[in-house]
Amino acid sequence: MLYLEDLNVGDHFTSREYEMTLDEIKNFAGQYDPQVFHINEEKAKDHPIFQGLAASGWHTAAVTMRLWTECLPIAQGLIGVDVNLRWPQPTRVGDRIHLDVEIVDIQPSKRKNDRGMVTYLTHAKNQNGQDLMVSTTKVLVFRREPT
Amino acid sequence: MLYLEDLNVGDHFTSREYEMTLDEIKNFAGQYDPQVFHINEEKAKDHPIFQGLAASGWHTAAVTMRLWTECLPIAQGLIGVDVNLRWPQPTRVGDRIHLDVEIVDIQPSKRKNDRGMVTYLTHAKNQNGQDLMVSTTKVLVFRREPT
Repeated sequence: MLYLEDLNVGDHFTSREYEMTLDEIKNFAGQYDPQVFHINEEKAKDHPIFQGLAASGWHTAAVTMRLWTECLPIAQGLIGVDVNLRWPQPTRVGDRIHLDVEIVDIQPSKRKNDRGMVTYLTHAKNQNGQDLMVSTTKVLVFRREPT
Repeated sequence: MLYLEDLNVGDHFTSREYEMTLDEIKNFAGQYDPQVFHINEEKAKDHPIFQGLAASGWHTAAVTMRLWTECLPIAQGLIGVDVNLRWPQPTRVGDRIHLDVEIVDIQPSKRKNDRGMVTYLTHAKNQNGQDLMVSTTKVLVFRREPT
């Protein structure tokens, strides 16, 4: 497991692939984002932006979280503080999502000697290398040894 | 359904309450965020930050999406472009989440005469009025009549 001392700006992490199935897209959207372009393949074709069934952006985000838990082995876990995210294009049935993660900032806490804030940039891409979600995430990371 | 012409900076929207149950918290986290502080009540007590079971932040976000779909009746749906979010405190079992939403910016498109970008600020609060998630969301909204 990684502590603050183990991380450096520029470190990269890569996840496995996660395949988005029709059933999972409809199940997630049915519970959390029941808009027609996420749950009805026929009606989604007529939508001016989506032009076909698309996963909820929050489903893409949830899958990204799953992949982070697998490829970012931070001690005490991933404790999110804030996140900025955008969805350059929709996630479609059959897309296989993988993450490219890069650490872009590390700020030791000025008030607490056992922790710091780490910022990482994530590209969640499909099998064709297209960005489905791009996010900047700030997490709290503990030190192995307080300074 | 609301079009760009119907919206004004300062407009408010409020959702119903959504109760976070133990089963749903564990189910969501088991699939998308299987960290110990989201799935194991006993072990979560020992976590230095959470000190007890907490819902995944992405679960709070997904429930917020559900409530947006119910209280923001935008024509053609909620088409998210980008989002900033933070979690001031954990969501706990039994929390009843509701949203206070305020429109903070409206920008007609300079290139396309049928749409614009609308930014809204959301406070997802529990039954005690404590902020669980605060987000700023930008969505594409169509005009009823192109200019």
